[in-house]
Amino acid sequence: MSKPRGIVLLSGGMDSCVCAALAARDYEPAALHVSYGQRTESRERAAFHAICDRLGIAQRLAVRNETLRAIGGSALTDHEISVPDASREIGSSIPLTYVPFRNAHFLAVAVSWAEVMAATRIVIGAVEQDSSGYPDCRPAYYSAFNEVIRTGTAEGAIRIETPLIAMRKAEIVQLGLELGAPFDLTWSCYVRQDRACGTCESCILRLRAFEAAGVRDPIPYAERQA
Amino acid sequence: MSKPRGIVLLSGGMDSCVCAALAARDYEPAALHVSYGQRTESRERAAFHAICDRLGIAQRLAVRNETLRAIGGSALTDHEISVPDASREIGSSIPLTYVPFRNAHFLAVAVSWAEVMAATRIVIGAVEQDSSGYPDCRPAYYSAFNEVIRTGTAEGAIRIETPLIAMRKAEIVQLGLELGAPFDLTWSCYVRQDRACGTCESCILRLRAFEAAGVRDPIPYAERQA
Repeated sequence: MSKPRGIVLLSGGMDSCVCAALAARDYEPAALHVSYGQRTESRERAAFHAICDRLGIAQRLAVRNETLRAIGGSALTDHEISVPDASREIGSSIPLTYVPFRNAHFLAVAVSWAEVMAATRIVIGAVEQDSSGYPDCRPAYYSAFNEVIRTGTAEGAIRIETPLIAMRKAEIVQLGLELGAPFDLTWSCYVRQDRACGTCESCILRLRAFEAAGVRDPIPYAERQA
Repeated sequence: MSKPRGIVLLSGGMDSCVCAALAARDYEPAALHVSYGQRTESRERAAFHAICDRLGIAQRLAVRNETLRAIGGSALTDHEISVPDASREIGSSIPLTYVPFRNAHFLAVAVSWAEVMAATRIVIGAVEQDSSGYPDCRPAYYSAFNEVIRTGTAEGAIRIETPLIAMRKAEIVQLGLELGAPFDLTWSCYVRQDRACGTCESCILRLRAFEAAGVRDPIPYAERQA
């Protein structure tokens, strides 16, 4: 029996890279990348293609969302707002880097594409714990979105999967190592595109994850916290 | 007490025009227009601005969604697929003009904008009966989407309203006349931009609505069915 078609949302970061490795194992995979005028846009798109190349994912869609930047309201898309260093308690409140309702834009693209290509699964690397406190990374949100898909699509058979949502970041690193996820090709930094800054909240979360897993993060950093 | 902020999704067609008139009456109104590479894109955007001008809606956002056309799969966005004449039974099955999961793209933009401007209501002119049989025009879909908003936004206080969803098209015309909705400025045709074709499913539904309401549709048609 052939594998079902599955679309992985692949930003190019470590979590979505692990999801891409899962999708390549379990599904006939297709990968979706949505850039949205975020600061590190071209670096993330390059990571997307490099990860797909390594994992042998030929079916790809890389599109640009023009509306999130027009709306603004986040340090990632509005260059009037600075990306904070991760000195505050991560996860204690909704941070400045929250892009309002961002994941719904990405999921809408994934579902439209799934309808056209008859894919039945969408894999997204949302993580609830150890994450930045974004409201659209919680299980209840994905349950509700699956109901939107069931009621709002022609077939209703498409389902979102969140394989990492209950995992700690260190467990995600371990899973990625087991699957051969190409962490060396990923990009997580919110600020820089040459070497990762090592001090934004995304870099801090990532460095903590590798440290907790007891392995060295293979990408180059401008600065590493002790 | 000041009115709450409400965003109306305004395509420029008759249903959304009535919703804009409702929003202008009940809310501090803002209007959102999303074009998506559909055939009559520039004509619909002109209708959006003309309707806003007439209703005195100053706060506007007109954006372009680049992904729906990249995905295709609909006669409205894929010019390899012809827009059918409305000879088949309208509403009997999902038509070729269905744009897969389109309304979720529009609602995602509306919710992101609502979060940034602190609006608490989103008004959309979805109609279940007398409509084209699109799955994303049913009440269950909007209930589910409201749950996505509740679980996936920072405040959770935004709610979608669908004031027309249970109305017949003739009732919508009547309501619009009572509210002074500027039907003369609207555009519904899927095919032409100079005069409405009078034969596509959107024109047919509209002409039937005005006929059932016993009033003449004020826009010019190339051809009118007897």
